[in-house]
Amino acid sequence: MEKVFYMDNAAATRLDEKVLEAMRPFYFESYSVATSEFGYSLGLEAREAMEDARGRLARYLGADMDEFIFTSGSAESSNLAVKGVAKALGSKKGRHIIVSKIEDFPVLYSARTLEKEGFKVDYLEVDEFGFVNIDNLEKLITAETILVSIQHGNQEIGTIQDIKRIGALCYKKGVLFHTDATHTFTRVPLDVREMNVDLISVSAHTIHGPKGIGGLYIRKKTPIAKLMDGGFQEFDLRAGMDNIPGAVGFAKAVELVTDEENTRLAAMRNKIIEEVFEKIPDVILNGDAVKRIPQNANITFHYVEGESITLHLDMYGIAVSTGSACFSRSLEASHVIAGIGGDHERAHGSIRFTLGRFNTMDEVTFVVENLAKIVENLRKISPLGKG
Amino acid sequence: MEKVFYMDNAAATRLDEKVLEAMRPFYFESYSVATSEFGYSLGLEAREAMEDARGRLARYLGADMDEFIFTSGSAESSNLAVKGVAKALGSKKGRHIIVSKIEDFPVLYSARTLEKEGFKVDYLEVDEFGFVNIDNLEKLITAETILVSIQHGNQEIGTIQDIKRIGALCYKKGVLFHTDATHTFTRVPLDVREMNVDLISVSAHTIHGPKGIGGLYIRKKTPIAKLMDGGFQEFDLRAGMDNIPGAVGFAKAVELVTDEENTRLAAMRNKIIEEVFEKIPDVILNGDAVKRIPQNANITFHYVEGESITLHLDMYGIAVSTGSACFSRSLEASHVIAGIGGDHERAHGSIRFTLGRFNTMDEVTFVVENLAKIVENLRKISPLGKG
Repeated sequence: MEKVFYMDNAAATRLDEKVLEAMRPFYFESYSVATSEFGYSLGLEAREAMEDARGRLARYLGADMDEFIFTSGSAESSNLAVKGVAKALGSKKGRHIIVSKIEDFPVLYSARTLEKEGFKVDYLEVDEFGFVNIDNLEKLITAETILVSIQHGNQEIGTIQDIKRIGALCYKKGVLFHTDATHTFTRVPLDVREMNVDLISVSAHTIHGPKGIGGLYIRKKTPIAKLMDGGFQEFDLRAGMDNIPGAVGFAKAVELVTDEENTRLAAMRNKIIEEVFEKIPDVILNGDAVKRIPQNANITFHYVEGESITLHLDMYGIAVSTGSACFSRSLEASHVIAGIGGDHERAHGSIRFTLGRFNTMDEVTFVVENLAKIVENLRKISPLGKG
Repeated sequence: MEKVFYMDNAAATRLDEKVLEAMRPFYFESYSVATSEFGYSLGLEAREAMEDARGRLARYLGADMDEFIFTSGSAESSNLAVKGVAKALGSKKGRHIIVSKIEDFPVLYSARTLEKEGFKVDYLEVDEFGFVNIDNLEKLITAETILVSIQHGNQEIGTIQDIKRIGALCYKKGVLFHTDATHTFTRVPLDVREMNVDLISVSAHTIHGPKGIGGLYIRKKTPIAKLMDGGFQEFDLRAGMDNIPGAVGFAKAVELVTDEENTRLAAMRNKIIEEVFEKIPDVILNGDAVKRIPQNANITFHYVEGESITLHLDMYGIAVSTGSACFSRSLEASHVIAGIGGDHERAHGSIRFTLGRFNTMDEVTFVVENLAKIVENLRKISPLGKG
């Protein structure tokens, strides 16, 4: 294969060389664990680097540095946010939580686990573009509600929720608000004071940072119980050896994202959408055209299977994802496409494009040209009609 | 400072350059996530590398490759082992577990959390060397017992338990057996079939591998429930983006450990112990002289504070740990020293030496010489008697 490139979720998981350079000293020089500082000074440099990384990540969200903890990734962060608040408040304030129907799995399945343990969970509907209705959310909040968890940007269709209005509502109602910002962090502005968010899940692997490191913003005085027992790391909210290179790499990854880059990603995304709509009939854009994360396009091609498209693009060295089966490896259709009212066919005919720093406009042109040919050919032999 | 070296837990956390070299392709080339394989072939190389790493780690323990999962580290592994078994069996078989009194915090505090949730926990006593008494263990096992969790090698005093006898007992009694092998993995032989272990926690950071990756061996058909919700990674026992570079780095770290290295570590350890006993009066070796992990020495110096010693060694550029306060940063004495019958003074006067690949015999000589001077001087001004 001459050329291979990723335009699926993997696009953003290629480590940036500059991130590795920033991590190197903490692999080979200041690798002492921060927990050993007691009694000698040699671990201080490593601890200082870790706290510097923490401070930079916190400030990026408009938070103080004692409001940000490191985790193994946003899946752990979301588990801790949802279950940790439930554990802290479940026997005190109430046992009701609200999540959107199209949350990513860590939030969705944490909520389901709580449901099995006797919590009441409301799964808030979304409209055809993926937006929650804030009036409906307000109606669901009761005196028993302890947490609202609504994502910032959707993992499949890229829809950006109005976090500021949701935050204001939760603040008014005295309910904690968690948002999963895995797919928006550094790509879409998010400020914890301005937007009244109490908990935010973020990850490094979505922005060319290292895998195995993420974070959780936790507003001061938020009631939350730890889930992982052991040492007293991360303000006693987590156990496990401090991942100093990971923390430093995460902060570096954030530093490397620029407004120009986000503008460039949005331009490539727009190009994909515009060209597909121009060249290929019978397509639907999944998600909103405007309030959408810059790195995501999600398009349904009627009368063809998304997996046939991915297999054919694969032959050109292009990796994209379908709207189904990406996590479970079952043939279950996407709960997100179902959530916005799409049927089985729409889910299975959808293709998700995710762009990263290393994608180019030339790649976009190459993808769209081949896509047009592939879809045309597949439709000729399609058993789904329009053959 | 001219020369700085670590002879505390950090000694083993310096990444080996060869590990990073093994990881590099999965940062920059085959960085596609294994979960995206469905529908295209480009993620296969990364998945294959991950499964190859899994297979090698499993085989190292005498296990099959579908019996080993990756986690964020051994703290997570131990939480999953202890709480996951409790979750799976607590409402079926019984609600009794047994742990040793000197377990590391992830096991100890997971047990305490279960106790708060209504489980009965026995904290098995150890003798003056840190060994559990297997007859006493047998007496504690009842029809309600679901899990015995006894570490392989102790984190502070290095005592190696007789895992084979404990495994045989648990097998005979039909009780699951978990061992935390964080400090023994690759340093002390461990074979899951021969030793009848059902669950084993391991970490990469203790053997010059990357931080943020660990593993859990889980014998086939062991009843265990997942704790972290989200995707269906790791045979549906964990959620979160696959850490492919971490997995590959972990396997490489294991490959780099040789019998010769373990012999060399034991020789350095023996040299520390012998020279200290020769040069410095009024010292106690904490832990067993023979059944001891090769990289650990733990010595109490009567009439002095361990922290004064660490501060003075620090001035020579040497990092060691005291037996107190290493995790909590409180002045609480070590539960391990207390567990072997040591009093407050013995805990506070203890120094733990941990050796790694990059320590040398010259460093050992340098440390012991300075230690003798430091202890002598401190004792002259000691308020603890013997001045």
